[in-house]
Amino acid sequence: MTPSLQNWASGVQRAVEDELAARLPAAGTAPVRLHEAMRYAVLGGGKRVRPLLAFAAGELAAAPQAAVLQAACAVELIHAYSLVHDDLPLMDDDSLRRGKPTVHVEYDEATALLVGDALQSLAFEVLAAPQAQLDAARQAGMLHLLARAAGSHGMAGGQAIDLVSVGQALNPAELEFMHILKTGALIRAAVRLGAWCGSALDAEDEQRLDHYAKCVGLAFQVVDDVLDAEASTATLGKTAGKDANERKPTYVSLLGLPAAKELAQELRRDALAAVAPFGDRAKHLMELADYITHRSF
Amino acid sequence: MTPSLQNWASGVQRAVEDELAARLPAAGTAPVRLHEAMRYAVLGGGKRVRPLLAFAAGELAAAPQAAVLQAACAVELIHAYSLVHDDLPLMDDDSLRRGKPTVHVEYDEATALLVGDALQSLAFEVLAAPQAQLDAARQAGMLHLLARAAGSHGMAGGQAIDLVSVGQALNPAELEFMHILKTGALIRAAVRLGAWCGSALDAEDEQRLDHYAKCVGLAFQVVDDVLDAEASTATLGKTAGKDANERKPTYVSLLGLPAAKELAQELRRDALAAVAPFGDRAKHLMELADYITHRSF
Repeated sequence: MTPSLQNWASGVQRAVEDELAARLPAAGTAPVRLHEAMRYAVLGGGKRVRPLLAFAAGELAAAPQAAVLQAACAVELIHAYSLVHDDLPLMDDDSLRRGKPTVHVEYDEATALLVGDALQSLAFEVLAAPQAQLDAARQAGMLHLLARAAGSHGMAGGQAIDLVSVGQALNPAELEFMHILKTGALIRAAVRLGAWCGSALDAEDEQRLDHYAKCVGLAFQVVDDVLDAEASTATLGKTAGKDANERKPTYVSLLGLPAAKELAQELRRDALAAVAPFGDRAKHLMELADYITHRSF
Repeated sequence: MTPSLQNWASGVQRAVEDELAARLPAAGTAPVRLHEAMRYAVLGGGKRVRPLLAFAAGELAAAPQAAVLQAACAVELIHAYSLVHDDLPLMDDDSLRRGKPTVHVEYDEATALLVGDALQSLAFEVLAAPQAQLDAARQAGMLHLLARAAGSHGMAGGQAIDLVSVGQALNPAELEFMHILKTGALIRAAVRLGAWCGSALDAEDEQRLDHYAKCVGLAFQVVDDVLDAEASTATLGKTAGKDANERKPTYVSLLGLPAAKELAQELRRDALAAVAPFGDRAKHLMELADYITHRSF
């Protein structure tokens, strides 16, 4: 990150962390173990990429901060629940996440299942909470969008395709379809929800923004695949090299490392071009596209 | 069920089944296996007790049918997701549900996890769908209520208490707290959401209805414990006698069979008394309280 982006991002990350801490059930309230584990799963880690995108998109639409914060936290809670469930032994069986033991390792599998379930509910509870700066019809629309992005036509659907594709040879179109759902749907939702908190964009602008979000969402996954192939476990904060070990199709296994890196840069250029007409209002969206595609290389 | 209640209930059950079939993703759409499994989990079984309660409460408030149907299906989807997750080996490890193999037996554990996750998202998607007969502020409030009922202060929280209470001696207050969350929260939500679809009740009437819902929710669980202790697996459609086998605290283990039955009848009388002032508008609520407490004995 450039110093100026870092500075802005730190402010957003702090606000999101504080809001999540306030919205999560207090650790001492019954059921204590579940509430502790929910806080363990969500707080004190993560780059908060989706909230950053929501805030950057909110700036484009001059959205009030309180409304964007609410939407950003809802998206982050969906993301956090998905990590807890993905890490379970019956799914990816991962024991390390953000440099800490995963929830089912630190607690137990049944608790991890319930943590994920309850975090998903909490995401909708947070987004449905009364919000003076959003009209209710807009709010209902945002809830609908988030539910759809999380469900079988979005993130959970992408996970299901990932599941049946282990050991299979996917072509680039199939791999892209999987990632557009698995990672892309929630990243798109973050961008769209951030913008919906502000003044309505016209159809063309909405489409530009959505194209940006699609490119960034896909680039994020391509970079993830590159990082998984290149980085060590220590740098990554999660188990590295897992994808290849488990014969999961990735952009690296499909295209090779150099072409995967080139694809990430191509998606970056597309993303930047999509929001260039917004000029300075898209400053942080553009800087985030740079950051996401340059995370490691 | 009395023939007249049976007649009314059949109509509701048919409407709910049709609506659920229409709202669930079509079986042929990608990801196919996930969508098939979601339909398997939800359709063609279940007494639809929560939708029946939502419709009965809707009658009390002269609610439009389309709005109640939407709310009833959302609640049923939350219920269906919870069954899929509860049946997983890492939780209750049940292989039979509604007389059929459970989802993880018919498909696999990872698919069952995603089915539950995606059904929860779908519940909120259904409830957030544009609805001409509800104003948006009311709809946002209903989404908030359902999210809270499903989460760690409701159903998922009750499940977490159930988890840590295996092999422990709970006192009646602790057992009641668990069930008020585990089964009660969603049953209360069904009743309140049904009523919220119609003309607003005053505070006193709202409280009467909520007291009815609490009594019926608890009675439902007491009867479940009695059935589990008495019935055979064939009658029950799920594995009988499991609770005692697993040293789970139940009303039967705590109070003995006769006192548990008496408690169910007491709760029935309380529920009926709570809605008696509504007269004929509460006809089906009263008949459902009778049905729920007389299911077997």
